[in-house]
Amino acid sequence: MTPVPAEVEKNSRNVTVNRGPFVVPGFVAGAAESGMRYSGRPDLALICALDANGCPAAGVFTRNMFCAAPVELCRDRLKAGKAKAILANAGIANACTGEEGKAKAAQMARLASEALGCPAESVLVASTGVIGRQLDVQPAARCMPALVASLRPDGWGDAARAIMTTDTVEKMAGLRIELEPGIEVTVGGIAKGSGMIAPNMATLLVFVCTDASVTPEVLRHWTRAGAEESFNCITVDGDTSTNDSLMVLAGGAAGNKTISDIRSPESEAFGRALTKVLRDLAIQIVMDAEGATRLIEIEVSGARDRESARQVAFTIANSALVKTAFFGADANWGRIVAAAGRAGVPLEPERVSLFFADLCVFQNGVPLPGEQIEEEATRIFGQKEIHLRLDLGLGSGSFTAWTCDLSFDYIKINASYRT
Amino acid sequence: MTPVPAEVEKNSRNVTVNRGPFVVPGFVAGAAESGMRYSGRPDLALICALDANGCPAAGVFTRNMFCAAPVELCRDRLKAGKAKAILANAGIANACTGEEGKAKAAQMARLASEALGCPAESVLVASTGVIGRQLDVQPAARCMPALVASLRPDGWGDAARAIMTTDTVEKMAGLRIELEPGIEVTVGGIAKGSGMIAPNMATLLVFVCTDASVTPEVLRHWTRAGAEESFNCITVDGDTSTNDSLMVLAGGAAGNKTISDIRSPESEAFGRALTKVLRDLAIQIVMDAEGATRLIEIEVSGARDRESARQVAFTIANSALVKTAFFGADANWGRIVAAAGRAGVPLEPERVSLFFADLCVFQNGVPLPGEQIEEEATRIFGQKEIHLRLDLGLGSGSFTAWTCDLSFDYIKINASYRT
Repeated sequence: MTPVPAEVEKNSRNVTVNRGPFVVPGFVAGAAESGMRYSGRPDLALICALDANGCPAAGVFTRNMFCAAPVELCRDRLKAGKAKAILANAGIANACTGEEGKAKAAQMARLASEALGCPAESVLVASTGVIGRQLDVQPAARCMPALVASLRPDGWGDAARAIMTTDTVEKMAGLRIELEPGIEVTVGGIAKGSGMIAPNMATLLVFVCTDASVTPEVLRHWTRAGAEESFNCITVDGDTSTNDSLMVLAGGAAGNKTISDIRSPESEAFGRALTKVLRDLAIQIVMDAEGATRLIEIEVSGARDRESARQVAFTIANSALVKTAFFGADANWGRIVAAAGRAGVPLEPERVSLFFADLCVFQNGVPLPGEQIEEEATRIFGQKEIHLRLDLGLGSGSFTAWTCDLSFDYIKINASYRT
Repeated sequence: MTPVPAEVEKNSRNVTVNRGPFVVPGFVAGAAESGMRYSGRPDLALICALDANGCPAAGVFTRNMFCAAPVELCRDRLKAGKAKAILANAGIANACTGEEGKAKAAQMARLASEALGCPAESVLVASTGVIGRQLDVQPAARCMPALVASLRPDGWGDAARAIMTTDTVEKMAGLRIELEPGIEVTVGGIAKGSGMIAPNMATLLVFVCTDASVTPEVLRHWTRAGAEESFNCITVDGDTSTNDSLMVLAGGAAGNKTISDIRSPESEAFGRALTKVLRDLAIQIVMDAEGATRLIEIEVSGARDRESARQVAFTIANSALVKTAFFGADANWGRIVAAAGRAGVPLEPERVSLFFADLCVFQNGVPLPGEQIEEEATRIFGQKEIHLRLDLGLGSGSFTAWTCDLSFDYIKINASYRT
């Protein structure tokens, strides 16, 4: 196997993710309006591999005990490591719907498979919306011809808009890297989600396609690893949804030598590219979170290990008091320290320091007083993107979590979601 | 030892807690205005046992790793099982304040002890307010004579008002039970707290006095057991404060035979009375929680054990999505079930049922559809006090948690707390 040249490696590290329109050779996407719950907007999205036999596919799903019917269906179908298409609907989650819900998820897949002329088992499904309501299959059946007719190489934006619920913007991310000399591959994906966002895991819908040629095992490995570094690092409200689904399809149209060794340089390069797209989509999710006005990056360093750093970071990231202080641009750092103190991780207060960007406000357990620090902290809290670092002074474990502030609009959106 | 007659037992169960003014023989309380942080309102409270030698005392404190200086002081002093007085200030928490904070907590206790003429070690202190700011001791010193002069048997209301921060009403609860034939004892207490309320433990200040004669060991036992059944069952925002303190003083003026056997009927009767007062104060805290418009009682039944029921109940009670739905009076029960599903407790969806009051909306994993159910659920969600029960269908473990809804006012209060 030819080793990947240094400049390509470098490329894959520095390559910029494109949030605008993209095309993934070998795939088409589209959307249609079924009217199942919403009116006057598309609510069905379809993504399809052009290869008649489908392609390698992998997925990561919610750990919620009440996982939705489409999640159960996909978990089962992805055991084969292959898929031809993904059909997603917005408006009704098909979760907590019992046997009827399972039958309806299978019916949805069958509708798409009949329209596409492929086996039913090769279609994956995903749903997002209200929990506890049954899917209305008839409207989906009626608009299936229109949905299939809408499929085109640049249909990703339409698909991204069709899966939105309380999202205010569609989320897209694509990039190209040179995987072997002269052979470029594309990784492109769409996502939706703006509430019920917490790790364990994605708490949203994410569909990514690539024209790289990868075995199902390698794809599964990087899908899981990528989720760990992206969607498992964000939280909006700590609520893990019943429907979280991340699915990745690898079509192979790029013509690279099929990546089958997880530890090969090409595999690593592919993994980095996939992770980059996933992380960009994850950040987009937090930035468009329900009512969010600020993006907050919470870095916990100096922990005994990554797991305890993670626990502290998420306790801060999910604290209603911390999040409201960010909304009010009030540099009330005591709440951040107090949240760390209740994370269930042993701490030594006299070793803990807190920084906003590069400004230290709390050093080895003692507040740094002074009007200048207060003014500078207030200035930092007024920004749209805020970085804070809590150093625990105990070891070398670290973790970075992303969250947003908690605003009036979060309450407004969620107090009347169903009406 | 004379067994307690049946009717007394019954009395202690059915006795009603009085939220109005009360008197605890052997104790005085008072308040004064130091102007340390607030102006135009009392901010210091003092509670004092009349017995020159003090009396049995016990406490339960926050488990936050960044516990406040006064908490450290009290933990240490209560090892002796005795105390003479409690001095509390509102406005500054004296948490995350390092060695200077510890010295200032000791200074505050010394000020009170000098004014009262008792040993410094017999004075307990408590603080609530902003984290990370140092106490201003001089204003407290100046008003100490006025504070001591304010002490009187019916000063509890003044003391309760002096420890308020974002509280909108003072919290008081008192009751009398016949402990032995012809001997009545009083249990009376005050509390503050309306944000940073979560179990582990109280996340607030609670001071309770009784004229019952009890050994320090028995008092310690029932203080802990009572906290478990009251303040450890409530949450407002899941944020455990740095300053939570529950302290109970037992003066003995009632003249009952000193309770020294934890398992005696008198001990049990005393424990029930104390728990009743603590639970009433806990419910008052939730009802006055920051921005709260509804009290929500979440009962989880049919769990494998109490601990897993507790975990599910608190995951629901702390879910921002559940709490906003309650605020909007939107009977969006899917969020309740989804929160249960992410509690980290193994569940079998097809055994789970959900009730609002007596109305079943989700039975053995399947939603009960129909406009009538929806209408009735919406009516229940419109009430000020809502009871919901989630039956897991797995065993006999149960737990009840109390929480409130999440409203615009919670954001408003907390986005600008320091200003």
